[in-house]
Amino acid sequence: MEEILLKNCKLILDAMRLRKNQDILIREGTIEEINEGLSTSGISIDCKNLLVIPCFFNGHTHSPMSLLRGIAEDLPLHKWLEEKVWPLEKKLSAEQMYIGAKLSGMEMLKSGFSGCADMYFNMDYVAKAFIELNFRGVLCEGIFDFFDKSETDKKAKIALNMHKRLNSLNSKLIKSSFGPHATYTCSRELLEIIAEYSLEYNSLVQIHVAETIEEQNQCIERYGIREVELLDEVGLCNERCVYAHGNWFNEKEYELMRKRNAAVVQNTISNLKLASGATADLKRLISEGIRCCLGTDGPASNNSLDPFEMMKFSSLLQKHIHKDPSVLSSKDIFRLATYEAYKIFYPELKGGLIEKSYVADLALYDLNEIRMKPLILDDGQHIINHLVYSCSGMKAKYVIVNGEISVFDYKLAKENEDEIIKKFEKAFEDLIINF
Amino acid sequence: MEEILLKNCKLILDAMRLRKNQDILIREGTIEEINEGLSTSGISIDCKNLLVIPCFFNGHTHSPMSLLRGIAEDLPLHKWLEEKVWPLEKKLSAEQMYIGAKLSGMEMLKSGFSGCADMYFNMDYVAKAFIELNFRGVLCEGIFDFFDKSETDKKAKIALNMHKRLNSLNSKLIKSSFGPHATYTCSRELLEIIAEYSLEYNSLVQIHVAETIEEQNQCIERYGIREVELLDEVGLCNERCVYAHGNWFNEKEYELMRKRNAAVVQNTISNLKLASGATADLKRLISEGIRCCLGTDGPASNNSLDPFEMMKFSSLLQKHIHKDPSVLSSKDIFRLATYEAYKIFYPELKGGLIEKSYVADLALYDLNEIRMKPLILDDGQHIINHLVYSCSGMKAKYVIVNGEISVFDYKLAKENEDEIIKKFEKAFEDLIINF
Repeated sequence: MEEILLKNCKLILDAMRLRKNQDILIREGTIEEINEGLSTSGISIDCKNLLVIPCFFNGHTHSPMSLLRGIAEDLPLHKWLEEKVWPLEKKLSAEQMYIGAKLSGMEMLKSGFSGCADMYFNMDYVAKAFIELNFRGVLCEGIFDFFDKSETDKKAKIALNMHKRLNSLNSKLIKSSFGPHATYTCSRELLEIIAEYSLEYNSLVQIHVAETIEEQNQCIERYGIREVELLDEVGLCNERCVYAHGNWFNEKEYELMRKRNAAVVQNTISNLKLASGATADLKRLISEGIRCCLGTDGPASNNSLDPFEMMKFSSLLQKHIHKDPSVLSSKDIFRLATYEAYKIFYPELKGGLIEKSYVADLALYDLNEIRMKPLILDDGQHIINHLVYSCSGMKAKYVIVNGEISVFDYKLAKENEDEIIKKFEKAFEDLIINF
Repeated sequence: MEEILLKNCKLILDAMRLRKNQDILIREGTIEEINEGLSTSGISIDCKNLLVIPCFFNGHTHSPMSLLRGIAEDLPLHKWLEEKVWPLEKKLSAEQMYIGAKLSGMEMLKSGFSGCADMYFNMDYVAKAFIELNFRGVLCEGIFDFFDKSETDKKAKIALNMHKRLNSLNSKLIKSSFGPHATYTCSRELLEIIAEYSLEYNSLVQIHVAETIEEQNQCIERYGIREVELLDEVGLCNERCVYAHGNWFNEKEYELMRKRNAAVVQNTISNLKLASGATADLKRLISEGIRCCLGTDGPASNNSLDPFEMMKFSSLLQKHIHKDPSVLSSKDIFRLATYEAYKIFYPELKGGLIEKSYVADLALYDLNEIRMKPLILDDGQHIINHLVYSCSGMKAKYVIVNGEISVFDYKLAKENEDEIIKKFEKAFEDLIINF
């Protein structure tokens, strides 16, 4: 792994503190030094007029679903799932999922995400796509038994096998986790087995929780308790558990999550699009000290994998629901999309800040973009305001993940973009032709 | 004005119908012909793999406020206005407003807006900026007397003088209108005078209406009636009147707007950011047959002037408030941002569609963008889904306004972008240094 020196950068250390004219020396995946006048025998990049920030991390997505983007819009949830999403998903091959994940990874990387938490099927294929791009993935095989007891053990075995397979890749970019889909698709027994695995292998668990009120009602009808209570009973309310969505919690559930240190990923855009009726209450979660971060959700339900749009929607909807424009500052939102996401998904790692000895996951943006104007160069707050509120769709000029260059001068460094698009188009054609 | 031929385009005629391999011949500001195998002695552009759509029109903004972008965020409305926006605005010179409008115009043009409805001060300077860019403006000098009778005639005179000055420019790009700021900043007498001018000169009137519930309450307290009722009494509820925001209407007001044919511009992002507590109910407006379109609001309260983000936020918030994902299709939203906006602001013109004899306001986008993938090339619906839900931040490769090229290969055709940014930075520095 070659040393990288970023010369004369402006950088945001931690969602607020700004430093100018700094060199950043990166060695073996880590920020080795931040100072003036550094030198290297490795790669040197002139970063005059570039802004360096810690990479964003996408807390929840389904990357292969790029193949379904734009296929079915403006439909009620069940019609959307039953008539469009599920029939198409049934036909998806592992190879198609690989190329779907690749396109999504490319889209995320180029805008400044270093990685994503991803739940889908054939996740070893997704891992392959991400490794080729030099992009992180906290991956889990999505499983469900739909309360069919003859399926429970089989599905648990699939989860465990994939867990082992992902770990055997021995890639610093790929982290294996477990992915029981939700309380309304997994039996109590299946959830219990996954809880045991999670403990035994010290692995994260990603699960959809409280996305809709119907889902909560089903849980109450089935078990007489709410989703987080059920999860607590089966051993899936603890510091290893990450709840996607979290739109419909009550007092008791907040209390449980706080006590047990479970985490929540808000997915505002998807919640609006599918009319979930609510969105995770970030103000409440933060004030309770519950760990939380942001996600885009999959490309069929968002539809863009854009960190800036994710921050802007998330922030503005909080202001709207709390009827208070001062709720959640741009700094708060920026921290959720960077530092807090790393704390949830990489508790073993120092990430999400630009500091010596932290992991070298960095995104560099051109400060000459119109949307960054005007620019008070001595004011970290002003720059963060722009990143959160103005910059939807902005592309990174360079992206470094785990100390290696993934995006160089707006282009993928490790792969050919045109090839990826060509393969993706072919896969899509094959998928649709038989539909 | 030289003829322009767009060769081998894919084009969206009207938010749904798609045609491929078509040439578009543009002469004297108008779409002269759409067919295969056309030729020209003028400019010819190869548009293979480009998508041509009618330009977007931004229904409400305050373009010089780009100078205040990112300066004050996450503040309650009154603190925002009183401590930040108003003190800075007091110091703004006409020259600074000119350069602010120029930067905003550049941002809008490059993403595919052909023009905007703009309310601010020194609008002859704004007109100059827009004409230089080849960008449309329906401009009005914002006026208010704050119920001070000694100010009323003076402010009315300012409005009339600016109206005459803008008309005397004799530019096809600039349309003059009147801009009484709101019912809570303009006396009844001032509104009445403006209503007379509007009738006499057959001019549009832009006014902020029902943005907040407090504003409605003030009106009721002052006059015993709601805002639209007051506007109806003073002669400002008719087919020439355009209401920005329109978040808090009651039954009687919908009825009045419908009867009198007044129009509403929704500004979702701004309403969320300033926590107006509601947003214009597009579903209701459309079902009542009330004309409506979309706006970004000014760059201090949005903060990006992006047609795609504007469409996405507007659409998704409607799904959320109506608790129905099928409310307002992507096609409906696209029409509001194009055709319906033209109908409101240019009733005398054929605009917002790609048809023979329609005005040549066209935006061309690269279909190879990742966010446009996958792409079903025979399906207008699929492409419109992408434009509305996936494409935040996307830039147009070419933009043609009134039959002339404004953006050529992603760059301004008539002006130097670096110069505009340099001048803008200087203006901003001067403004802030003395603050």
